[in-house]
Amino acid sequence: MDAKTQKAEFTRMAIIGAALDLAAAEGLEAITLQAVADRVQLSKSGVFSRVGSREALQKAVIEEFGRRFIADVFVPAMQQPKGLPRLDTIVRRWIARTRDVEAHQGCIFTAGAFELDDREGELRDLLLSEVLRWRAALRRTVLQAVEAGHLRADTSADQLAGEISALIMGQLHDVRFLRDPQAAHRTEASWERLVKSYQA
Amino acid sequence: MDAKTQKAEFTRMAIIGAALDLAAAEGLEAITLQAVADRVQLSKSGVFSRVGSREALQKAVIEEFGRRFIADVFVPAMQQPKGLPRLDTIVRRWIARTRDVEAHQGCIFTAGAFELDDREGELRDLLLSEVLRWRAALRRTVLQAVEAGHLRADTSADQLAGEISALIMGQLHDVRFLRDPQAAHRTEASWERLVKSYQA
Repeated sequence: MDAKTQKAEFTRMAIIGAALDLAAAEGLEAITLQAVADRVQLSKSGVFSRVGSREALQKAVIEEFGRRFIADVFVPAMQQPKGLPRLDTIVRRWIARTRDVEAHQGCIFTAGAFELDDREGELRDLLLSEVLRWRAALRRTVLQAVEAGHLRADTSADQLAGEISALIMGQLHDVRFLRDPQAAHRTEASWERLVKSYQA
Repeated sequence: MDAKTQKAEFTRMAIIGAALDLAAAEGLEAITLQAVADRVQLSKSGVFSRVGSREALQKAVIEEFGRRFIADVFVPAMQQPKGLPRLDTIVRRWIARTRDVEAHQGCIFTAGAFELDDREGELRDLLLSEVLRWRAALRRTVLQAVEAGHLRADTSADQLAGEISALIMGQLHDVRFLRDPQAAHRTEASWERLVKSYQA
């Protein structure tokens, strides 16, 4: 990458980062080219020339949030052996990320789900496809733990993946809305009890 | 109540009901006197004279939602014996209400929590006090089940009440955002597994 291309890429990343902060604080619908331009000290047309329309920027934010989540939660877990060790790493990293990142910034995916749940359109479709992609990855990891004999043969991957997602949503709610500093600690205890109830 | 007072009360209830529908669809911040006036075919000043300011109307909506929830979920459960029968009735009625009411209308309390989590002010304070009131009622019911010997003596009421709330949040997310018709069914199965893991 030459210096000019690199600078352009950094500017684009700064724009998307600013839009992500804005969406985390006020919701995906709060993203406008002008609001983001003000945050990065560019003109509105300068933002447009780098990321395109408001809709393109909203989509870029969803994709960037998804990339960070996958990088923090799923990628390091791939180094663990298939089965319960990998599943356990995913869940513990997800709890930790919710405690260390989403507790302060908000979770664009959960808040976005409650923001867009009764709307239609490309933004909802993109967010939905990202959430379903995680859920499918989580379900596959549960299935591998069943195949390895680490979880009972009658474990429903759909059920357990849904329960894990629900526990994390509860943690996010309790830490951000109730501002309960014990939330992450409780979610860890819930996960330990949950996995025990599915163990062979 | 004379006929005139009754009519005034009906009009007030219609205003609050319209504001509740609006908040369920678009969020508490979407409530404005004008938007509600348009829905009930009154003038803006006609709405103001009956409910007061926009803030008073938002508060009335939160209180009305709370009353309906308590009436549907907690009040009927009080007819069950203290302990697990009562706790089980609360959870099953909560799952059913989430399936039959919130799945279509949205849940003002959960969506409101993700809408207001990083704001300050009277609206957040009121919503928080309502949510804490339910959570406390749920915790007391768990404690009674422990005292009755229906749940293990080492059961943490805080933990179990948080897990139940998380399961319902997961159901709401999955039915409204994923539009998964199996969500309520899965939450029932989760509740049965959850309570079993705490049973003496």
